[in-house]
Amino acid sequence: MSHRFVFLGAGNLATHLAVELHRKGFFIGQVYSRTEKSAKELADKLETNFTTSVQEILPDADVYFVALKDSAFEEVLPHINFQNKLVVHCSGSMPLSSLQNYSGNIGVLYPLQTFSKERKVDFSEIPVFIEGNSPQNEKMLRRIAEKISARVSVLNSEQRLHLHVAAVFACNFVNHFYAIAGEMLKSQNVPIQVLNPLIMETARKVQEMDPGKAQTGPAVRFDHNVIEKHLDTLNDFPEFKKIYKMVSENIYKFHQNT
Amino acid sequence: MSHRFVFLGAGNLATHLAVELHRKGFFIGQVYSRTEKSAKELADKLETNFTTSVQEILPDADVYFVALKDSAFEEVLPHINFQNKLVVHCSGSMPLSSLQNYSGNIGVLYPLQTFSKERKVDFSEIPVFIEGNSPQNEKMLRRIAEKISARVSVLNSEQRLHLHVAAVFACNFVNHFYAIAGEMLKSQNVPIQVLNPLIMETARKVQEMDPGKAQTGPAVRFDHNVIEKHLDTLNDFPEFKKIYKMVSENIYKFHQNT
Repeated sequence: MSHRFVFLGAGNLATHLAVELHRKGFFIGQVYSRTEKSAKELADKLETNFTTSVQEILPDADVYFVALKDSAFEEVLPHINFQNKLVVHCSGSMPLSSLQNYSGNIGVLYPLQTFSKERKVDFSEIPVFIEGNSPQNEKMLRRIAEKISARVSVLNSEQRLHLHVAAVFACNFVNHFYAIAGEMLKSQNVPIQVLNPLIMETARKVQEMDPGKAQTGPAVRFDHNVIEKHLDTLNDFPEFKKIYKMVSENIYKFHQNT
Repeated sequence: MSHRFVFLGAGNLATHLAVELHRKGFFIGQVYSRTEKSAKELADKLETNFTTSVQEILPDADVYFVALKDSAFEEVLPHINFQNKLVVHCSGSMPLSSLQNYSGNIGVLYPLQTFSKERKVDFSEIPVFIEGNSPQNEKMLRRIAEKISARVSVLNSEQRLHLHVAAVFACNFVNHFYAIAGEMLKSQNVPIQVLNPLIMETARKVQEMDPGKAQTGPAVRFDHNVIEKHLDTLNDFPEFKKIYKMVSENIYKFHQNT
């Protein structure tokens, strides 16, 4: 394909997405980031140029990918003349309309995954959600997305926002609970790695089973005895204790209602 | 080995553990459960006998495995004459001393995993934690545990209790967050399966990385913009909103301190 892309942003998501597009033969003509180090690092990976100045952003790309922090949209985008080219953001929580002041051709390409720069992920299995402001733009986005993923679907902005909240629970909050578990073990000199098989099996279970059905543990059984003992154990961790209480009550209620 | 075991309890944990011991050549002479259906089901799997009456529990087993709900210990155990044989419980939150009134030879064998009756798990990779009231009993438990798992270690009751709390966070609470994520998606007619790669990658990440370092998402960046939008989205789910707020604040604080 002969499309020329420009990437605005050089964070975790921008890096994984741009590298994958590059690997699949798309030509990324420029990387913009306010931070020179990030801009250069990503540009090097893409064998392309970078800039840290909005004034120097190339004016004639086919697609502009906006992979900025949501709060940076309004700081950066008004300074760029997109000349009605396709402008696409990659954010879970920004509506398509957040781009409407900048171009007549706008879209979203949102890959649902947790990206860390140092980790490789298999892009082909990552669900990619697209949205365009015209059938033509949506078609263009589908063509691009299907080059990198086998799981492309259209989602509107409202659905994507709910999906983003869901992902915060299923990934960010889950990871934080791994961290809390690690703190509990550290306090007893037990290595965190003992949890690895439990963590994997918990994740694997819901690949096949409804999480409602997979639920085990004291809260769903309303095992008062165990819960009280756990709350006592958490006296040295008052914040974790509050979380334990709230989540246990929610598990119990949730399973009463289903 | 010629040991004869008796299993008290026929729930998820009892079933997985007893079946694995049986598979590895141990002889389970009897299963006791208050519920005839559960007792019979497990006994059938072990090709052995069952009873629902404490009076009929075999008096001369080598090891009695107590795989009862914690709160059932005091209802069931006082009615059994263990004749000083080795009595071993499998609970994360009960101390070893909870057995001291019933025999002079007591221990704990605690496999750390989430068990559902319908799911097979590879027992060899499950960490098994043992504790005995004498070197001799501990040795006996190690011999048994090492037949079924490659990861056997000794843990005292205080450590095991903390481990159990950690497991509630890393498994039960995590699974509940998968369920919450599913509810969010259901409200928008998005299939829950789109989360599968995210869930797997989040679990895989911490097999190698410290969860503190693996944390991504709006809370750790303190992305006020996104957090506020998510809280708005959660107005239809007031309980989930409270949890979102509390966990986000905790993530932020946790990463301020580290």
